[in-house]
Amino acid sequence: MSKLLIVGTVAFDAIETPFGKTDKILGGAATYIGLSASQFDVESAIVSVVGEDFPQEYLDIFRKRNIDISGTEIVKGGKTFFWSGKYHNDLNSRDTLDTQLNVLADFNPVVPEGFKSPDIVMLGNLHPMVQLSVLEQLERPKLVVLDTMNFWMDNTWDDLLKVIAKVDVVTINDEEARQLTNEHSLVRAARKIAEMGPKYVVIKKGEHGALLFHDEQIFFAPALPLEEVFDPTGAGDTFAGGFTGYLAHTGDLSFKNMKNAVIYGSNLASFCVEKFGTERMQELTKEDVHQRLEDFKSLTQFQIKLT
Amino acid sequence: MSKLLIVGTVAFDAIETPFGKTDKILGGAATYIGLSASQFDVESAIVSVVGEDFPQEYLDIFRKRNIDISGTEIVKGGKTFFWSGKYHNDLNSRDTLDTQLNVLADFNPVVPEGFKSPDIVMLGNLHPMVQLSVLEQLERPKLVVLDTMNFWMDNTWDDLLKVIAKVDVVTINDEEARQLTNEHSLVRAARKIAEMGPKYVVIKKGEHGALLFHDEQIFFAPALPLEEVFDPTGAGDTFAGGFTGYLAHTGDLSFKNMKNAVIYGSNLASFCVEKFGTERMQELTKEDVHQRLEDFKSLTQFQIKLT
Repeated sequence: MSKLLIVGTVAFDAIETPFGKTDKILGGAATYIGLSASQFDVESAIVSVVGEDFPQEYLDIFRKRNIDISGTEIVKGGKTFFWSGKYHNDLNSRDTLDTQLNVLADFNPVVPEGFKSPDIVMLGNLHPMVQLSVLEQLERPKLVVLDTMNFWMDNTWDDLLKVIAKVDVVTINDEEARQLTNEHSLVRAARKIAEMGPKYVVIKKGEHGALLFHDEQIFFAPALPLEEVFDPTGAGDTFAGGFTGYLAHTGDLSFKNMKNAVIYGSNLASFCVEKFGTERMQELTKEDVHQRLEDFKSLTQFQIKLT
Repeated sequence: MSKLLIVGTVAFDAIETPFGKTDKILGGAATYIGLSASQFDVESAIVSVVGEDFPQEYLDIFRKRNIDISGTEIVKGGKTFFWSGKYHNDLNSRDTLDTQLNVLADFNPVVPEGFKSPDIVMLGNLHPMVQLSVLEQLERPKLVVLDTMNFWMDNTWDDLLKVIAKVDVVTINDEEARQLTNEHSLVRAARKIAEMGPKYVVIKKGEHGALLFHDEQIFFAPALPLEEVFDPTGAGDTFAGGFTGYLAHTGDLSFKNMKNAVIYGSNLASFCVEKFGTERMQELTKEDVHQRLEDFKSLTQFQIKLT
């Protein structure tokens, strides 16, 4: 079975959307990535850090799904990273209300022995130097995928470029791709990102789908049109988990199969937004995912007899 | 050969985009629809009105493509409808700088004898009562498609609802669908529009593609990701021309074939925006369209072996 190493935050989130408001609930990039990737038969591990306040029942959520959390440090007396945000009415943008780094401030990732030669590494959104330090502990994996955010462009530009140069795939949202490259056209932005190192670029456009770029080839996966998006938190990470989980499961890293991985990413993300936080992802079954694949097929596949 | 009746404006446009500025050039909804539909083997006619100032060379553009313009009235001493607009930097929105209705103010459409029982009617954006008056001159066509705009929602709401009740397909952009239904979710908006009468609803999202709704089925066609959109004017009408031209050509009005029609609509529209006004559409060949169909296939089609 392929090994998937996931690096990222495991956190508490407090979320407000037009539909409601949560107390501190389970969140974090690595959480969403791990839950999403667990829909595939892969051996996965999360390298992260939490505080002593992190409840046993949350740890059990990972263990029950055979996600190795021996590389997730529990800091004695420490407090878990906390993020709080409020979405605007159209759910396309949000304000951060509070960020408490807590144990994340001194996070020094240690990859467990069993995961030092993973097949695929998913570097979730984190300080670029932390992402880099993980890569330095590994034998070169078959594929390294990196997600990042505007925060690191604003604050750690040089470090970010260093880690981008070392990865195979970058997943990034549209506005961040524009910020990173100073190009409005996503086709040009993707080309510029590829010039920084990665052979593949995935640009996530939220409700408008995701684009996969490789050389001069482009593939597009729509988001599933939903009656209601309940809470967009974690959708991008869930996409990344579906993308890397499918690639790890199939072991096929061709561009053709990456198209499928992008479809699976969109598939998984379409569930994530249906309920608050990780709720929908926790109850998700393989049957749900298979059924939704059929929805994606009828949404996008066509048969044209040439005229 | 199937007959396609096109109703809409034939006009002068003056356009300003971040890339440049035109004098009065050929424009109008029926113009774009006609040029686009002429890529298919269909017998088409344009019902419209122009002034005496409308140049012979523009009329020849239609005649050369075997578009019947006997139903396009040339008003002696009249001036052609003129629209002028300026696009914002991201090309997603624009300001209207000038609108001179001229001969359009008294437009009384007369369908030529040979087109009183067309197979398909494309009612381009116009006063809803003008659209209705065309329908009243016809034997019931196999398919009636209507395009409209926010202007008619603001000013002629009741008339608009009357004509919407009589058509099979509505094509409308996302913001207009939201305005028409007071629903943010496009899935819900499409359902509400269908309740007004049309069995099919196409929601155009510009650079974010187009959605086709029918009962509980949804199909999505992306816009082709382009390095540069030069001038979006007419893209929606070009989409409508590709959609109806393909349906008229194939004569197959099943939902399955409407998926193909939406792909052809996006295909044609992707050319329209490459140059100013109708320039790209005038030089377009069937070979170009076939080749771009291959681009759309590699952009959207995938082969997933179930896991």
